[in-house]
Amino acid sequence: SVTVFGVVDASVSHYTVKSSVVPGSPLSTPSPPTQSQTVLGSSGYNSSRVGFRGSEDLGGGLAAGFWLEGSLANDVGNVGFFQRRSTLSLSGGLGELRLGRDNVPTFWNDVIFDPMGAVGVGASLLYQVAQNLSVVNAGLLPGAGSPLSAPYAGTGLNGGLSGNTDNYTRASNSIGYFLPSGLGGFYGQVMYALPEGVKATNAPNPNPSMRARYAGGRFGYASNGFDVALAYAESVQTDTASLKDTIKTLNFGVSYDFGPVKLFGEVSRLKDAQRVTTPPLLGSIYTTYQDNYRGAMIGATVPVGPGLIRASYGQVKSTNVAGTVLSPPATSVGELSSKATKLALSYVHNLSKRTALYTTVARIKVDDGQNNPSVMGASVNLKTYSYLQGNARWAPSTSTGFDVGIRHAF
Amino acid sequence: SVTVFGVVDASVSHYTVKSSVVPGSPLSTPSPPTQSQTVLGSSGYNSSRVGFRGSEDLGGGLAAGFWLEGSLANDVGNVGFFQRRSTLSLSGGLGELRLGRDNVPTFWNDVIFDPMGAVGVGASLLYQVAQNLSVVNAGLLPGAGSPLSAPYAGTGLNGGLSGNTDNYTRASNSIGYFLPSGLGGFYGQVMYALPEGVKATNAPNPNPSMRARYAGGRFGYASNGFDVALAYAESVQTDTASLKDTIKTLNFGVSYDFGPVKLFGEVSRLKDAQRVTTPPLLGSIYTTYQDNYRGAMIGATVPVGPGLIRASYGQVKSTNVAGTVLSPPATSVGELSSKATKLALSYVHNLSKRTALYTTVARIKVDDGQNNPSVMGASVNLKTYSYLQGNARWAPSTSTGFDVGIRHAF
Amino acid sequence: SVTVFGVVDASVSHYTVKSSVVPGSPLSTPSPPTQSQTVLGSSGYNSSRVGFRGSEDLGGGLAAGFWLEGSLANDVGNVGFFQRRSTLSLSGGLGELRLGRDNVPTFWNDVIFDPMGAVGVGASLLYQVAQNLSVVNAGLLPGAGSPLSAPYAGTGLNGGLSGNTDNYTRASNSIGYFLPSGLGGFYGQVMYALPEGVKATNAPNPNPSMRARYAGGRFGYASNGFDVALAYAESVQTDTASLKDTIKTLNFGVSYDFGPVKLFGEVSRLKDAQRVTTPPLLGSIYTTYQDNYRGAMIGATVPVGPGLIRASYGQVKSTNVAGTVLSPPATSVGELSSKATKLALSYVHNLSKRTALYTTVARIKVDDGQNNPSVMGASVNLKTYSYLQGNARWAPSTSTGFDVGIRHAF
Repeated sequence: SVTVFGVVDASVSHYTVKSSVVPGSPLSTPSPPTQSQTVLGSSGYNSSRVGFRGSEDLGGGLAAGFWLEGSLANDVGNVGFFQRRSTLSLSGGLGELRLGRDNVPTFWNDVIFDPMGAVGVGASLLYQVAQNLSVVNAGLLPGAGSPLSAPYAGTGLNGGLSGNTDNYTRASNSIGYFLPSGLGGFYGQVMYALPEGVKATNAPNPNPSMRARYAGGRFGYASNGFDVALAYAESVQTDTASLKDTIKTLNFGVSYDFGPVKLFGEVSRLKDAQRVTTPPLLGSIYTTYQDNYRGAMIGATVPVGPGLIRASYGQVKSTNVAGTVLSPPATSVGELSSKATKLALSYVHNLSKRTALYTTVARIKVDDGQNNPSVMGASVNLKTYSYLQGNARWAPSTSTGFDVGIRHAF
Repeated sequence: SVTVFGVVDASVSHYTVKSSVVPGSPLSTPSPPTQSQTVLGSSGYNSSRVGFRGSEDLGGGLAAGFWLEGSLANDVGNVGFFQRRSTLSLSGGLGELRLGRDNVPTFWNDVIFDPMGAVGVGASLLYQVAQNLSVVNAGLLPGAGSPLSAPYAGTGLNGGLSGNTDNYTRASNSIGYFLPSGLGGFYGQVMYALPEGVKATNAPNPNPSMRARYAGGRFGYASNGFDVALAYAESVQTDTASLKDTIKTLNFGVSYDFGPVKLFGEVSRLKDAQRVTTPPLLGSIYTTYQDNYRGAMIGATVPVGPGLIRASYGQVKSTNVAGTVLSPPATSVGELSSKATKLALSYVHNLSKRTALYTTVARIKVDDGQNNPSVMGASVNLKTYSYLQGNARWAPSTSTGFDVGIRHAF
Repeated sequence: SVTVFGVVDASVSHYTVKSSVVPGSPLSTPSPPTQSQTVLGSSGYNSSRVGFRGSEDLGGGLAAGFWLEGSLANDVGNVGFFQRRSTLSLSGGLGELRLGRDNVPTFWNDVIFDPMGAVGVGASLLYQVAQNLSVVNAGLLPGAGSPLSAPYAGTGLNGGLSGNTDNYTRASNSIGYFLPSGLGGFYGQVMYALPEGVKATNAPNPNPSMRARYAGGRFGYASNGFDVALAYAESVQTDTASLKDTIKTLNFGVSYDFGPVKLFGEVSRLKDAQRVTTPPLLGSIYTTYQDNYRGAMIGATVPVGPGLIRASYGQVKSTNVAGTVLSPPATSVGELSSKATKLALSYVHNLSKRTALYTTVARIKVDDGQNNPSVMGASVNLKTYSYLQGNARWAPSTSTGFDVGIRHAF
């Protein structure tokens, strides 16, 4: 009643990141470095994983099931048991109740409507920017993208490819509900992740932190090769006496399988809303800021014998919107915008249902990356990049990536 | 020859902790906070776990076996491979030799004679106090319960629900022996855990630290629904030039299954003996202290169709006994006592042998908690609690907990 | 298609380390301590492990396979998933391509041609010295063995028995190729481990660190009980602006199975080459140093009914060779040498193919250990040893070890 399952995916990957001098920099600004790296990667086509799962028929249409899935870094021999999923389910005619750590609903659109499945160098830009934003807000990277934080303060371009992505991909302590199958093609799920803060009466800060709370849902319709889904969620990233930061995610995806070609499309809007409270001097003073990320992606897959050609093109724009300052009167902060575009091409050659060879190439171009380097300087996996050297002001400009590898599932 | 096995248990749990002002506090002492927390829990009815086990028949009645069992926090997707048990056994007509990390003998009485199995919010008070004591002695919580340490110095009410419980539940590097079956109902085991210190001749401190040494045993008789067992152990918590701390555990349990009802009872006595050596000025000076914990618990389970009602009531008293000061002459330290009582009720509804729904409610009342807050302020899982705020002197007074969840075994 | 496999090995082990006063020490030097320790060990005969492996026949002679193997410390219940091996393979008539973390080619001779298999207190001295050297170079122990580092600066005799052995036993991010079988007894493999450094043009240090790069191969011939193999590798331990350290390993092993007795032999040469660059004052100044380790081992195994007698004798000599100082002119540094010898005896009693009882005794003698204590003071597992106490200068002199245990494979 237990199945041991997994994916081992290994690639040789090469990444390059270029930067450019920010307009207005001193004339003495030196040329920025071009960085490149060759690595053995572990998740070029499918994310490597190892897990255990099983289910029990309880009679009367009721079933219990468990799913324990760890992330696997097979290039270095590390594993995160069970970071990818650890759930207990009770399911029946009324749907499924699922408890534990699981993918969040809003992430699914970024996976399912991306021809690359949000994996490898070709992963959709919507996925990359959202993940970077989540990582920055998790405090894993210096803040950027808000007038509050110096846009050049960052020390890393992209450290976001860990699992510490603050509820963008997965949430712990979650309670999920899935609609049952058999609704004529309609499907859906909702999820609430408990922040687990401690409430204390008679205390200076009685209300617990809501950090880690996720509330969202996803609803769609799939029939005859057509699939469409809408998802929305609010996720609290920071909740202290001085700062509350919430990411509001709305995305919508569609795919249609014509047979010789399957088309994909997704639009996504992220709002990163910050409310900053300063110590009250003459009345309550707080300021709201909001960073907006609007993106779109189109893609296609074309079966070719035992192989599959995959392609995608996406774009994300970010703007920093200064909010209302209630007291004292509002001061305006200029709007700073940034833009990134990405093109990805891939070929997968299936040796069997379980084993495939693959290669992917991708290129990202960033405009005005200095305005939001940590989030919008979405590199293709290259992790160490410093874009401030003394007075030199550099911004990420282009990034290319290449994967060639093998995927084996068991 | 390998079995993959486990338990996934998920609950929604709510905890509340109240405090009261300690008599004699300043009139200006503010009312203490009431704390509460709602969490997704992972071990409300059975401890979540994942493991591998197997055995080999070697012929002639001899068998070899292994058991590797990890703790599972399925709410957040973490696992402790193989913290719960990792043993190699050789067994035959003379009994079983077991090597590795295993449950200690004295822990079994706290599990087997507790209708709640020492799991969830209803876990017996004997278990909770012993675990808190072990955690405090492990240095995971500030010391308390001894005249040596300020009774208000603690910063946490209960951090004890980790696996770092210094040989209270389990011991590493252990050598265990179990009597064979077929002794007319008599059973027994002994265990010695090696401290693994390095002995060095010609050195200032030649003798190795005995910290982590556990020596104990458990003997019982089970027949026709009747079960009785006695266990004793000494466990070295600290062993430095200035302090040797040993916990001596003695417990005795009994259960009888009448059919419509099964009754449980246990008495337990813990001695936490400290010998403090101060730098010799005029002769050898050391002081001994001893904290005593005496507890008793009664309980019952009543099968109701596919369900099981469980109930328990327990009490533990602690006293700090000042020891003999050999040189200079003894100075008396007043005896400080504390008391806690706990009532727990639970209902388990079995959907199958492997899957069950359950709910448990429990309430703890603490008297004179200020005299031993870290150990006796045994809350029902609520972990963050500060009982000293400036001059305000608060003591833990009551704690309630509620679990509702699902347990699935595989 | 998945096999869960493993080894659980448990022993009771006793270690003793003696030291002697270094000639030329002050007359007031006190006698050095004798250290001893008794532990529950976890890898006396075979290394404890747990893993998953499987393969898929892709047709046409082609196959895909994966191997995920963790190290197991069953004495304390810890596991290193998947530190021992995590590989993905594609194999066919042209051989096997293997990607991930794997044993390095040069390590295999130290295992296969050691009657003790490089495990337990009897493990070959060639293995122990090489591992110590790797650990020292990994920065896990204070440097020793080079004129650059004070020979008495160490604080530990041997901390090397972890998996952090800087590519001596295993390498991450490796690409391996194995010759196919069916070459008339000839076999071979090569491996390259990617250092994964980031190259940056227009930067002060454009070239990435090569630390962790391993390049090596092993070729041999096996037929009719005869086996012979040669291996060579270069492994970069440190690569900074001021220091590049490379270990060059060459070893050669042979075994012949006569039936009643199987003989083993191996010779090994390690060069630890350091190039130190100092800040340029008047031209480029760098100095090269090289430590040499030359060792040889002979051994035998004798089947006795269901048992196996194992014996080995080995010796390693180390010399510190001062290198050429290019600018300013060379200054000579005296050569400092050290020598260790080891004798090991073992008996394994097989209860079945999977389960065995075993005992091993070993003794190491070190001459001039003060010249290279961290590497050449190769103790039999005893880990805490301080050989400098004030002005007292001690050197490791002898070390003995004893294992008695059980090995169970599944």
